[in-house]
Amino acid sequence: MNVAVDAMGGDKAPHEVVKGAILAARQFSDSEILLVGDEKAIQRELDSYEVIPKNITTHHTSQVVSMHDPATYSIRQKSNSSITRSVELVANGKAAAVVSAGHTGAAVAAATMHLRTLEGVRRSGIAAPFPTRHGMCLIVDVGANIACKPIHLYQYGVMAAIYSKYIYDVENPRVGLLNIGEEDAKGNDLAKETFALFSHSHLNFVGNIEGREILDGKADIVVCDGFVGNVILKFGEGLAMSLLSEIREEAMKSFWAKLGLLLCKPAFVHLKAKMDFAEYGGAPLLGVNGVCIICHGRSDSRAIQNAVRVALQVSKSKVNEYIVSGLEKVCVPTANVT
Amino acid sequence: MNVAVDAMGGDKAPHEVVKGAILAARQFSDSEILLVGDEKAIQRELDSYEVIPKNITTHHTSQVVSMHDPATYSIRQKSNSSITRSVELVANGKAAAVVSAGHTGAAVAAATMHLRTLEGVRRSGIAAPFPTRHGMCLIVDVGANIACKPIHLYQYGVMAAIYSKYIYDVENPRVGLLNIGEEDAKGNDLAKETFALFSHSHLNFVGNIEGREILDGKADIVVCDGFVGNVILKFGEGLAMSLLSEIREEAMKSFWAKLGLLLCKPAFVHLKAKMDFAEYGGAPLLGVNGVCIICHGRSDSRAIQNAVRVALQVSKSKVNEYIVSGLEKVCVPTANVT
Repeated sequence: MNVAVDAMGGDKAPHEVVKGAILAARQFSDSEILLVGDEKAIQRELDSYEVIPKNITTHHTSQVVSMHDPATYSIRQKSNSSITRSVELVANGKAAAVVSAGHTGAAVAAATMHLRTLEGVRRSGIAAPFPTRHGMCLIVDVGANIACKPIHLYQYGVMAAIYSKYIYDVENPRVGLLNIGEEDAKGNDLAKETFALFSHSHLNFVGNIEGREILDGKADIVVCDGFVGNVILKFGEGLAMSLLSEIREEAMKSFWAKLGLLLCKPAFVHLKAKMDFAEYGGAPLLGVNGVCIICHGRSDSRAIQNAVRVALQVSKSKVNEYIVSGLEKVCVPTANVT
Repeated sequence: MNVAVDAMGGDKAPHEVVKGAILAARQFSDSEILLVGDEKAIQRELDSYEVIPKNITTHHTSQVVSMHDPATYSIRQKSNSSITRSVELVANGKAAAVVSAGHTGAAVAAATMHLRTLEGVRRSGIAAPFPTRHGMCLIVDVGANIACKPIHLYQYGVMAAIYSKYIYDVENPRVGLLNIGEEDAKGNDLAKETFALFSHSHLNFVGNIEGREILDGKADIVVCDGFVGNVILKFGEGLAMSLLSEIREEAMKSFWAKLGLLLCKPAFVHLKAKMDFAEYGGAPLLGVNGVCIICHGRSDSRAIQNAVRVALQVSKSKVNEYIVSGLEKVCVPTANVT
């Protein structure tokens, strides 16, 4: 099974991406890793290794999407970019999945254009794994779709439940709707209409989830529009880092507190490991006809290696088939399908 | 100067609210605190004090808005509730300000109905103080208005800048727009149109602020719609509490880590104090014709005392006058004023 890796995508590309691809190629020796990007830049990285796994090949592209390019521009003007070419390899059947830590908007646009959405899917959505106090929760969408309609959010719930079941082995995943209150009638129009759709669905809908409840593990899936999801994902990352830094800075002000911090370091190591996005192997773009794993822009080699692991796991599963049949089965009142 | 305090509002009412009112009455002996609510319940609390400050009076109401009442219901069906009566005391000129830790939706609805908005103000918005790494930031709106238009967000920026200047002494406050990217063209339609309004304004607009940047202190004011603001405020609170608990739980697993935690306790105490909403004295509902301070539902006596302090400070300032003249001065392209 082949996985296309966008070698130019991410803050630490191509160095960490190539390193991650090599680690993945060693770990999954029966798979092929296709490194897509500037062949000279990739070769320079490969040259620093004594042995390069045989299951790594390079696919040259002349363009790179910068983080400042608008997503639509990147698709129209940079058709030979590493992200577009990576997605095309999947579209042409030359790879089963694509992994990218580059421009998220460009990856979503390229995947939507070249892979298309699965039958019945209205919009694709990114499902980001988020560590809670009692395990893991998928927040969907975290930035693919910032103009959501109720039917989009509803389908995110259906798709993420299937993903959670087949990839995380969660039996009957609990689906929650991010909202500003627990009561049924709370929220803006989008939330109210989506609540009605979920209430009449076959899903294990656990109702509204408030911001402070995301981490309580009340739901395995928290559905929200891509704007809100993106904001909270980034805010959470910033807040966690900020709190840990502040504790450290404060403790550094006295000898005893500094010693104390050293002694309780294992607790911080545990917490940092739990919050480490690199462990989770990226976030799937659910709903496209193929497998597309979106990684954090600051991904290191371990994050890329884990993303390839997830890409292979999803490709081998029948998640996309189950999504199509899962959406066929569901019955949504036509008034809400707009 | 009189301050009406909703004695029945909040998870710890009336006990902590009455206690906070007594503390405030002692601290601000030249002001009058009007405790509004069930007189028997209030009297039971007052009976436990040996000396009750003379500048405390009780105003009986027979109804209480429960946290489960929809905001509109609370206004229509519970006209003799403690929150409605408190707001009416301001509307009738018997109090300069109202403080409530009760149902936020009911407080906003009562204030909007009985105080009305200031001339030129389209929607009121709650400006919540949020501790950043380098001071304080006002996030507005955090739940008063969940169906925002660009003009509402724009006015929040104008009003919060005036509040920040006259209450926090921030010269030329930096106003940022919460968005999913730093680039100008990012975001949903609401964000894009609001960006355009801010760009052409007299405000010290510092552009888009991403979720992870809120805590960096890049802006003194972060503007967002009430749905997003409410979600991140609650999410932030949940995440901070969750992280601190997890560190504690992990450290408790070993003797040395437990000792370490004890030694670096000052760092945690510092952080907890910084994050303690009770310090900040509640969030003003900006844009209503009067002073309305919304407190956290879990407010204790110190939070109520500080909220009375803020209520008095805002009442003595000319913030509302400056808001009216500030909005008169600004020129907004009519196409966006919808």
